[in-house]
Formats: sequence, C-alpha cells, structure tokens
Amino acid sequence: MNVGVLVSGRGTNLQALIDRGRKGELGPARLTVVGGNVLDCPGIARARAAGLPTFVVDHRDYSARAGFDRALVSALRSHQIDLVVLAGFMRVLGEDFLGSFPDRVINIHPALLPAFGGVHAQRQALEAGVKITGCSVHFVDAGVDTGPVIAQSAVLVHEDDDEESLSARILAEEHRLLPAAVRAIAERRVVIENRRVRVLGESITGDVLRSL
Amino acid sequence: MNVGVLVSGRGTNLQALIDRGRKGELGPARLTVVGGNVLDCPGIARARAAGLPTFVVDHRDYSARAGFDRALVSALRSHQIDLVVLAGFMRVLGEDFLGSFPDRVINIHPALLPAFGGVHAQRQALEAGVKITGCSVHFVDAGVDTGPVIAQSAVLVHEDDDEESLSARILAEEHRLLPAAVRAIAERRVVIENRRVRVLGESITGDVLRSL
Repeated sequence: MNVGVLVSGRGTNLQALIDRGRKGELGPARLTVVGGNVLDCPGIARARAAGLPTFVVDHRDYSARAGFDRALVSALRSHQIDLVVLAGFMRVLGEDFLGSFPDRVINIHPALLPAFGGVHAQRQALEAGVKITGCSVHFVDAGVDTGPVIAQSAVLVHEDDDEESLSARILAEEHRLLPAAVRAIAERRVVIENRRVRVLGESITGDVLRSL
Repeated sequence: MNVGVLVSGRGTNLQALIDRGRKGELGPARLTVVGGNVLDCPGIARARAAGLPTFVVDHRDYSARAGFDRALVSALRSHQIDLVVLAGFMRVLGEDFLGSFPDRVINIHPALLPAFGGVHAQRQALEAGVKITGCSVHFVDAGVDTGPVIAQSAVLVHEDDDEESLSARILAEEHRLLPAAVRAIAERRVVIENRRVRVLGESITGDVLRSL
C-alpha cells in the first residue's frame, strides 16, 4: 500500500512514520511520497533527508480551493498513492480532493474527538479543565475533525500543564498512534460501517493503551 | 466532613462509597445520610442494609422544582451535610438546591465530559464511534453535566461492545473514581479556580489511571 504524507510544519509525525518504516513496523505500508504546501517547512526537509520524493503545492498560487486540491491530487496520483496521511497539514481539503481518495484520507488530531475539534485543541482542553485528553486518528470527511474515528490514545492533563507541555505529551502519543493506524489500514484491518470504524483483529487503541 | 448521598436507582456507586468507607479509605469523609426520590429503589435499600439513615422525597409530591429542592435541602441540613454526592440521582437540581450547597454538590457521569453529557452517555459514545470513553466526577452547576471536572478515568471501547457491556465497564471505573474524589474533597485538596478544578497533592485521575 503506497502511502503519501502531507505536511505543513515540523513533520514530527512524518518522522515517526519514517522511523517505524525503517524498523519494518509499518507492515505492508510503504512511504512513497511527501507533499506540502510550504516550500521550506521542516517536514519537507525531513522527507528529503530520508530519501523520499517530495512535492510542494503552494496554496497561495491558487485563487480557489478546487485548483489547489486538484494539483495535490495530481501529484499524489503520479505516485500511485493508495492512502493519504495528513500529518500536521494545515489546509482544509475539499470535495475535489476527498472525492479522489474516498475513505482513504486520514488525519491525526491532538484531542479525544469529538471533544476539542478544530484549532488549538490542547488549549481548548486546558480551558475546559478536563483531566484526560489525548489524540485521535480519523478518516477525513467534509467537516473539520468530524470523520470516523479509527484509533485514540489517552493523555493525562497535569495540574501545572501549559499549552506547550500538554502538547508535547500528546505529541508523543501521536507518534505511537499514527504509525499503528497506518499499519492496520495497510493490513486491511480497518473497515468503515455506517460512519463507525471497525478494526478487525488486534485493537489499535487497546495496543497503544496497554503499552502506556 | 459529613457526606450525603442522593440516589434514584441501583445505588452501586453508593455501595462503592460504603465499601471504601468500611475499609477506612474515604479519609475524613463520613457517609452520614442517603436520600432518594424513589421510595423502593435498591439504593435506599443498600443504605438501610449498611445501617445508614435514609430519607425519601418523592418528586411527584411537588408541583414545582423549587419545593422539591427545598425539601431535599431541609433533609440534608438536618444531618449537617457538608458535601452532597449525586450517585445516579436522576432529577435535575435547581438554584434552590445548588445555592444551599455552593460548590459542594458533585456528580458522577459515565463519559469523558465535555463529550456525551446528558442521558444515555454510553449509547452516545457508541453511536459516535469513539474508541475511548470513560467517566467524570464534576461539580454540579445549573447546566446538565457542565460543571467543573474534578477527576476522570478512561475506558476502552471494544469492537463488540453494546450499551450494556460498555456501561458495565465504565461503571467499574466509576466505583474507583467517585470514592477517590470524595476522599480528596474531604482532605480539602480540591479547589475551584475560574471554573477549573485544581487538585492539590496526588492527582486523583493519575492515581486511578496508573492502577488500571
């Protein structure tokens, strides 16, 4: 299964995928190409350093989302991508993109969805005063962080947490959860039924929780 | 600290408090009285079996909430109650009640609030397709399950869960979380600051998570 990763920033989740792949821990998933919308973002640099092909589609070159979407689709298709992973990709994708990869676009979000969707999820969690938050891997639909949840991991909020310290602890869980989800999808153990995700065989979420 | 517990149904969370109290695990908290709104509910029977004083205020005897609230307050005050624990109490309490015990009424809810407030929290979680849910102890405010969160515990959703099996697994966590929260409040380690709860000393949530 050819996996394309889209990044906009630091690319630490991309790095987690690269590292797991090198250890042979992504199963039949193969990182094939990394794309981005920001030319000089560290994520693209990480991909190059790992010897992966990269492409950049600058959203500022497009007056409408549809054109940007189609350019991304075209770049991914040229690499025969089966699964698209959004790893800190900060652009909302429209129907032109999602329709081209039906049920084959996933995202990692730093909260236990449906709680704290959208931006600044960690700050939202702190302001809500929750004691447990976490991260979620989900299929991407037309909404913002509303698609079917594939796997989640829980993270304890500490009394002295600020946005930075909480984000760092959640990020460590993201780095465990996202590769596990990509592997399970590549193993064809992830099925969408009525907008709920069934994971066949070993539970991704349970695996990650047990190893906490 | 004198604790009054209000029940409407099975009273298994009450039983957990009784059992912990017998083992001396509630710290300075002392179960003082158990009240209910349903004469023959098992919760009241459990209290009697444990030798606790009980009272029942039948909400059907009151045409308005205020009268029902005041009757509950009067019964609790006659036992010098410092902390009111709603343990499966199925009536919404109004200002006449909450104003009488400011920041001294807590509730246990079978979800990781703010997700899945209101009734059928477990069914809501299953329908949303989340992989992790849990339970929350929170201070009660004028909203439904909207008050400041004191402690939470996480529960894995299994692929084959139905409402009953998931509810049972969450309930087991409720039985651990609620006594731990009552003890911490009685130890005066729980402080509300700007609608967020600070737990001084050992984290209740962390304690419960670590012992999973």
